[in-house]
Amino acid sequence: MAKKKAPKPDDVAGGRLLDQLRVPQGPVDLSAWDTRATTGFTGSKDEGKLALDAIGPEVSDWQERLFAEGRSGGERRVLLVLQGMDTSGKGGVIRHGAGLMDPQGLKITSFKAPTPAEKRRGFLWRIRQALPGPGIIGVFDRSHYEDVLIARVRNLVAPPVWNRRYEQINEFEAELAASGVTVVKCFLHISEDEQKVRLAERLDNPTKYWKYNPGDVEERKLWPAYAEAYQAALENCNNPATPWYVIPSDRKWYRNWAVTTLLLETLKDINPEWPKPDFDIEAEKARLAAT
Amino acid sequence: MAKKKAPKPDDVAGGRLLDQLRVPQGPVDLSAWDTRATTGFTGSKDEGKLALDAIGPEVSDWQERLFAEGRSGGERRVLLVLQGMDTSGKGGVIRHGAGLMDPQGLKITSFKAPTPAEKRRGFLWRIRQALPGPGIIGVFDRSHYEDVLIARVRNLVAPPVWNRRYEQINEFEAELAASGVTVVKCFLHISEDEQKVRLAERLDNPTKYWKYNPGDVEERKLWPAYAEAYQAALENCNNPATPWYVIPSDRKWYRNWAVTTLLLETLKDINPEWPKPDFDIEAEKARLAAT
Repeated sequence: MAKKKAPKPDDVAGGRLLDQLRVPQGPVDLSAWDTRATTGFTGSKDEGKLALDAIGPEVSDWQERLFAEGRSGGERRVLLVLQGMDTSGKGGVIRHGAGLMDPQGLKITSFKAPTPAEKRRGFLWRIRQALPGPGIIGVFDRSHYEDVLIARVRNLVAPPVWNRRYEQINEFEAELAASGVTVVKCFLHISEDEQKVRLAERLDNPTKYWKYNPGDVEERKLWPAYAEAYQAALENCNNPATPWYVIPSDRKWYRNWAVTTLLLETLKDINPEWPKPDFDIEAEKARLAAT
Repeated sequence: MAKKKAPKPDDVAGGRLLDQLRVPQGPVDLSAWDTRATTGFTGSKDEGKLALDAIGPEVSDWQERLFAEGRSGGERRVLLVLQGMDTSGKGGVIRHGAGLMDPQGLKITSFKAPTPAEKRRGFLWRIRQALPGPGIIGVFDRSHYEDVLIARVRNLVAPPVWNRRYEQINEFEAELAASGVTVVKCFLHISEDEQKVRLAERLDNPTKYWKYNPGDVEERKLWPAYAEAYQAALENCNNPATPWYVIPSDRKWYRNWAVTTLLLETLKDINPEWPKPDFDIEAEKARLAAT
């Protein structure tokens, strides 16, 4: 079969995807976002996979520029925050999207339940520990948002505590933005039905048993409470400098393409340039030639 | 142009590459290893690149098995140690070889000159900090071997100090092997001429200026001393449980294929299996169906 022609890397229908998936300021109603949408992409699933492959070299090139800038005194970096219900595909985005880039320029952190020592230091401490260095693209698989999601739904802390956290998060993220971190917060939005299908797959496939946890069903029963907590987080922490993006995620191929495209557009906005040499090129050529 | 048929992923001429590139016990003479060799591979450069692409999915699959095992109580992990002269391609191996894998299962550490605080804690302290967790493939871009390489060549510590380190390294690595870490130590072997060509490229290409450092020429002048120090390290720390491998590295495509193939063979030797479920599958299906 002849390979289909991949669309041009920059082919996003309807303008920048960052603009199309950004959550508008104001009240958030997640039910208004279609989990099966393919916003900004007009092709088929196969074309979507080709499109993702096609932007790989471009994303990788921009990543290297950012990395080079970071090695040469630049302070700019990117933080991709991935949140979403179980099975929404945080790991899949990392594998298929972040996996297109040079792992040397990535710092991936997967946040589990905090340890007692971490809790004693305040919920943002371990987040700060995990921030990417200059020129690095940090990826958070879950994040400080868990502290206003599961903490709220499961009553892990009293309401006044989690209530205060929205503002603490806003201050923290404002500080990040001011210090050269471009924060890209993605909510991977799946439907309740799609989650059921994906959990069932994990029970049907022996290579996926390890991904299944009986606790997942308990969490699933709390779907409405989680949806409410997500809406509150997206509404209360949707700052112009660090906005939220909703990624329709029932279609895995679209989800991977969309997050990677957001990352590509973000890198282009940052527009890192190849560092100028801080040495005399001709003199160095002569020194090298003499060896 | 029709795409060439990729060779079978397991196509290594002459038996396992691990056996062909392993440094034999006893005295080491690096000049006896041809830096342009393509040991174990009979094809062309183009075929070599296709062969690397072809083993990608297989390496990735084995990596996921190891990762799954680590998430399910297993303690096994891999540590790939990359050493070699400047421009030998440690970064290239990570980009093109490790880059084939899921970044979630990788932990890459690039060691620079130790800070004063690190020095005070002993040369192995920061190395221990960077070890991969269960199921993870750790990659060291430079390593504890710098403490018997640059430290020896540049007289950063007195001879009795670096002399003692060979035995300290052997004990450390024996401890790693005993605790479930498979250590794969690769010396990326380039010729002095090839280094000159690669440094010159960095001075010719504005997208590579940032990789050039005038100090590289100073280091280059010490080539014979480094070669001697490498020989001593490969000879003194070549234990059957944690042997050294010499990777002919004048040809970048071969180097990337060879290191990735060593990694693949290593993962197959470890042979991690998909974890058995620790729950009752039918009961969980019923619980899920009821939601």
